[in-house]
Amino acid sequence: MALVACSQFSPVIGAVRDNVRRSLELIAAAASMGADVVVLPELASSGYVFADSAEAAAASEPADGFAVSAWRAAAVEHGIVIVAGFAETNPAGAPFNSAALVMPGAEPVIYRKAHLWDRERLVFTPGSDLPPVVDTPVGRIGVMICYDLEFPEWVRIAALGGAELICAPVNWPSVPRPTGERPGEVVRVQAEASMNRVAIAACDRSGRERGLEWSAASVMVDADGWPLALTDQAADTVRPGGGTAADPHPTGEAESAEPTGSDRADAPVTLLAEIDLAASRVKRIAEYSDVMADRRTDLYEHYSS
Amino acid sequence: MALVACSQFSPVIGAVRDNVRRSLELIAAAASMGADVVVLPELASSGYVFADSAEAAAASEPADGFAVSAWRAAAVEHGIVIVAGFAETNPAGAPFNSAALVMPGAEPVIYRKAHLWDRERLVFTPGSDLPPVVDTPVGRIGVMICYDLEFPEWVRIAALGGAELICAPVNWPSVPRPTGERPGEVVRVQAEASMNRVAIAACDRSGRERGLEWSAASVMVDADGWPLALTDQAADTVRPGGGTAADPHPTGEAESAEPTGSDRADAPVTLLAEIDLAASRVKRIAEYSDVMADRRTDLYEHYSS
Repeated sequence: MALVACSQFSPVIGAVRDNVRRSLELIAAAASMGADVVVLPELASSGYVFADSAEAAAASEPADGFAVSAWRAAAVEHGIVIVAGFAETNPAGAPFNSAALVMPGAEPVIYRKAHLWDRERLVFTPGSDLPPVVDTPVGRIGVMICYDLEFPEWVRIAALGGAELICAPVNWPSVPRPTGERPGEVVRVQAEASMNRVAIAACDRSGRERGLEWSAASVMVDADGWPLALTDQAADTVRPGGGTAADPHPTGEAESAEPTGSDRADAPVTLLAEIDLAASRVKRIAEYSDVMADRRTDLYEHYSS
Repeated sequence: MALVACSQFSPVIGAVRDNVRRSLELIAAAASMGADVVVLPELASSGYVFADSAEAAAASEPADGFAVSAWRAAAVEHGIVIVAGFAETNPAGAPFNSAALVMPGAEPVIYRKAHLWDRERLVFTPGSDLPPVVDTPVGRIGVMICYDLEFPEWVRIAALGGAELICAPVNWPSVPRPTGERPGEVVRVQAEASMNRVAIAACDRSGRERGLEWSAASVMVDADGWPLALTDQAADTVRPGGGTAADPHPTGEAESAEPTGSDRADAPVTLLAEIDLAASRVKRIAEYSDVMADRRTDLYEHYSS
């Protein structure tokens, strides 16, 4: 069992030092509550809504820069694993949308987001490596970022690679959905977890940035896909921006009410859940059924076409 | 737009003629309500909990047998598409767990379940063909059966093959789950639909058969994965066997209350939903994002290993 924290907060675009300092406070708070693993949002150090790659590059750092070095020091200080998103300098061009896994006694493992969402492709360079699966003191942790989770191929690759827990920094934009429904991203995390028997911790961001309202829908699910911890926004009891699920105008109300609203930081939320990583090693779900052994790999040849 | 019906009922094991006659009544009722497509449960003609393959073989028929012929005649009579599960005779050994798609002016299309669930492998022969995608008057319909849906590879193959609506006969056994949660199968149908932008109609069965309580959780979702129609059991407002979601012992209560209970047929339920099949052809989900074009097929080579 590992105590996993998602430390959801509202990074301020471009304010790398301030964002990292804020994240260190949240890491320390989670560690003081006994967390073995702390997950931070995508682009936690840099913010998200960059105008172009030049602006993103100005908020990017190499893997030995301030952000990852600070997280690494925090991991050593607290004796924990940290997975956090940052804008990574790319000497060859536009920066990467990356995540670092840091822990005591090991070099940082850097993953570069392979599936870039929407306008990210105008700002970032996509990664070209598979999601890493890292042996840590609490078990085998896979790392991917946000939109990566929406590709069942990617989660499968991590699960086949032995991931027992996928730590996913995310920035989920708030989009309209029917009343009473969880965000689609939460539903997909549940399903991906259960189809692969791998726990998933997705740490979202909150607030509003350059007109974009974030979902604030951090969620942790077990290897059966059942939520272990989720924010009110992920549970559909509260809508981003403060509306409730019972609002008569349930979809996109926060954005439409104030479409040109100024940036807004929300109070941070730390989710905590005891996650049984060993359960992810059990792929059997019935006397004769096993989610991996039952794959018809003999028939999937057309799959990657 | 197509009006799609899921005609959920409780087949009686081995009673092929009676089950088919019952299904014809439900098909006629759905057609009278204007249905363009009617989906019936997995093994609708035969029932499910066979002791062995010999017993299943006794309830099996070839693709030109009574069941498929009757459904074909009904499709012609009503001018509709029908997708229904049946036990299919296999001259070479154990029968197949199959589904037929029948419509006017075309030969039946037969699909044999490729991913056999649990003890099915002791009873049936697995299929060895990909899920068919059939041009019908209402659009392109893919066919798969129950546990097939749990393999993202399989849904992806159907979606890449052009399926706009996946019609899936299912028999979902009732298993414990947390209070307030939909059945995991429903969550996975929602997620698979949204990740592929394909509508899905899953027609479950109801009742109890040889001690096995069925979920009765038929559901239809649009290409965004949002439910268009779902039974009370799929929505988690009622548990199989009649308990409500507010029961203090929410998981498996029906089975534990009467573990050796006799077979039980429940009243049939017909779900109806207008499904926009054209929406499934739109894979774009943001200005620059497309669920298919964004796949990193250059990196998925390890996927089918």
